[in-house]
Amino acid sequence: MTLQEEMLHIGKQAREASRVLASSKTNQKNNALEEIANQLDQQRNQLTSANNQDLEAGKNKGLDSALLDRLALNEARINGMIEGLQQIASLPDPIGEINDLNYQPSGIRVGKMRVPLGVVGIIYESRPNVTADAAALCLKSSNATILRGGSEAINSNQAIAKCIETGLTKVGLPSETVQVIKTTDRAAVGELIRMPEYVDVIIPRGGKGLIARISNEAKVPVIKHLDGICHTFIDNKADFDKAIAVAFNAKTQRYGTCNTMETLLIAKDIAPTILPTLAAKYTDAGVELRGCVDTQNILTNIKPATEEDWQTEYLAAILSIKVVADLDAAIQHINKYSSKHTDVIITEDWSKAMQFLTEVDSSSVMVNASSRFADGFEYGLGAEIGISTDKFHARGPVGLEGLTSQKFVVLGDGHIRQ
Amino acid sequence: MTLQEEMLHIGKQAREASRVLASSKTNQKNNALEEIANQLDQQRNQLTSANNQDLEAGKNKGLDSALLDRLALNEARINGMIEGLQQIASLPDPIGEINDLNYQPSGIRVGKMRVPLGVVGIIYESRPNVTADAAALCLKSSNATILRGGSEAINSNQAIAKCIETGLTKVGLPSETVQVIKTTDRAAVGELIRMPEYVDVIIPRGGKGLIARISNEAKVPVIKHLDGICHTFIDNKADFDKAIAVAFNAKTQRYGTCNTMETLLIAKDIAPTILPTLAAKYTDAGVELRGCVDTQNILTNIKPATEEDWQTEYLAAILSIKVVADLDAAIQHINKYSSKHTDVIITEDWSKAMQFLTEVDSSSVMVNASSRFADGFEYGLGAEIGISTDKFHARGPVGLEGLTSQKFVVLGDGHIRQ
Repeated sequence: MTLQEEMLHIGKQAREASRVLASSKTNQKNNALEEIANQLDQQRNQLTSANNQDLEAGKNKGLDSALLDRLALNEARINGMIEGLQQIASLPDPIGEINDLNYQPSGIRVGKMRVPLGVVGIIYESRPNVTADAAALCLKSSNATILRGGSEAINSNQAIAKCIETGLTKVGLPSETVQVIKTTDRAAVGELIRMPEYVDVIIPRGGKGLIARISNEAKVPVIKHLDGICHTFIDNKADFDKAIAVAFNAKTQRYGTCNTMETLLIAKDIAPTILPTLAAKYTDAGVELRGCVDTQNILTNIKPATEEDWQTEYLAAILSIKVVADLDAAIQHINKYSSKHTDVIITEDWSKAMQFLTEVDSSSVMVNASSRFADGFEYGLGAEIGISTDKFHARGPVGLEGLTSQKFVVLGDGHIRQ
Repeated sequence: MTLQEEMLHIGKQAREASRVLASSKTNQKNNALEEIANQLDQQRNQLTSANNQDLEAGKNKGLDSALLDRLALNEARINGMIEGLQQIASLPDPIGEINDLNYQPSGIRVGKMRVPLGVVGIIYESRPNVTADAAALCLKSSNATILRGGSEAINSNQAIAKCIETGLTKVGLPSETVQVIKTTDRAAVGELIRMPEYVDVIIPRGGKGLIARISNEAKVPVIKHLDGICHTFIDNKADFDKAIAVAFNAKTQRYGTCNTMETLLIAKDIAPTILPTLAAKYTDAGVELRGCVDTQNILTNIKPATEEDWQTEYLAAILSIKVVADLDAAIQHINKYSSKHTDVIITEDWSKAMQFLTEVDSSSVMVNASSRFADGFEYGLGAEIGISTDKFHARGPVGLEGLTSQKFVVLGDGHIRQ
């Protein structure tokens, strides 16, 4: 079999499994999730030894320590996968829900039934725990899944795949419900994203380069976010204490996450009052500050921010700061430079808050809260498979509902159209 | 300016207009719709004379009578456009609606706000009235629109465009809110579907060839349906009278529409009872019947149905008929051959109806009703811009809501993440 034939075969099997899943019962899916959790618990030794093989190979290939850390499947991470599975089992089943079933003038009743998308392809990099998390979310939403992890995690992923397969077959679901691609040939990704007859959506999780390449080449819809360039705007009607607390938290609570603030905008009237206090806190926390000319006039001894800074997702202890004339200037800056992920206003002014909520075109828009809240768990979705900065289909944190669609159901009693 | 530069310029203007529209008020949009309707009413002579130019040129080019009929902008169609605009003005504004605004354990409140997609590109063929209808739906949903009609309707479309522009500027909305492309160069379509920075979604309306080419080449999401191969399955527990009425209506109420039944499936137990009565009605109405071997055994003198028939959208007075063993066989046939548009079961059996609703993977699934009901007006959407047979974003008839997205809104009071 050529690689293309192999991938088409995987796709065909996934499509067939998706038909079975479409009419699977909630209990069966939950039992499968519990069984997979049991398998992971029982196979800890096998998981650890497969992971050690990957770690060893990674060290020999000279992977850096951050990558090796992401690759490691320690006890805590195995526990995390097990808890994740159990938690997803406990969420309500999104499938089959019928909404808005109303009579129409003709006498038919029309409503919408929530249904799975079908087959979800997930492409990710080194973290092997994504294998279990993503499979679980897709299973709960009655989708078949084709998973393609990083080649450096191949042994760990296959060990997890074996647990998933055992769990599925124990409850009588097709083992092809979740397929973890065995080949490490990079061309497999190219095939996976070009099989619209077998794959309904692709979710890439990883670096910007990977995601950009996939979106560009895919012949299948992609749920993605490229960047997290998040802003906090401190309005001149902001409460001083809230502004300091939120702006500090948004930058420093974690540096490497996509919902971390990268640029602080501040109204010129209050910049001289607030910036020195805030800058002292950032500097104490080890954050490097880069500012526009007005910022540099207030905070001496900081680096200038260049055009490039406004376009950069640092994912690091660096913050760019810009003094703006007013709310309109802030919105203009955000709609120009934001990656449409999460943007925040700090203000006590009702009209300005409403204007910001309406006019900022980002997947999450917040008033008086830290951008770090932009997350499926914090939003009450139960779990998330990713965050979409697109507008089509899913926007913002994507939970179970983002893995579903709705079809129209029409109930009649012999009704004909006149 | 090269064609590419021209299209990029149009895209850029549309993007800018979309920003203004995003915060436009409901009244302003409704007033614009009313003003456009007034303009169309006042400019009847200009519309008719522009349309006569198109009709004349079409006759000289040898367009067939069906095409000339679609191209014609007679009084009734002008009235139709005007009523359409008024009706869309009277629909509730979908934009700005906030749903599910609930407290989360952290204390933040999280909800979803309905927002426009941004810029909608619409590519259509000869009917000039689409220009007004599509512009109105996009305007009501606060989207900027780039319209590309058929070259044979260029004068009619430009005359309508002028009415739209006057209406927009009268209420202070940017004239670039609706741009009707002036060039008839076919390459303009290629540019329009490859500007993801300026166009958020493409809606092609026209023949299968046009739609297939656009979906294949687009770098922008496409809302589309390729085919309407709709099925009606008469179960052995069907009520005789309802089955006859619905199956006859689904085929004969109109032949050229995408929600017309093309294949009739019938359970073998009742085929001998029902088929002769039904066949007599079809034959009286001038419908050509083509059947499987079992059908031919019951209805002598009809043509055989080939594999190709099951895959054909006739859009004509032709019907293929297949006798199937039972519900499972019917579902299997439908999930194999249906274009996922609309499929119907006729039955009095509760469990079978529920199984059909669950297992048939089409955008509309009906029990005891004619497939001809699959339509935005009949579904209570107020109007439709098209019907999607995809699962992603919009499925089935697409009304105003299909032209929108939802962003998360987070309301806090200085909340930070722990």
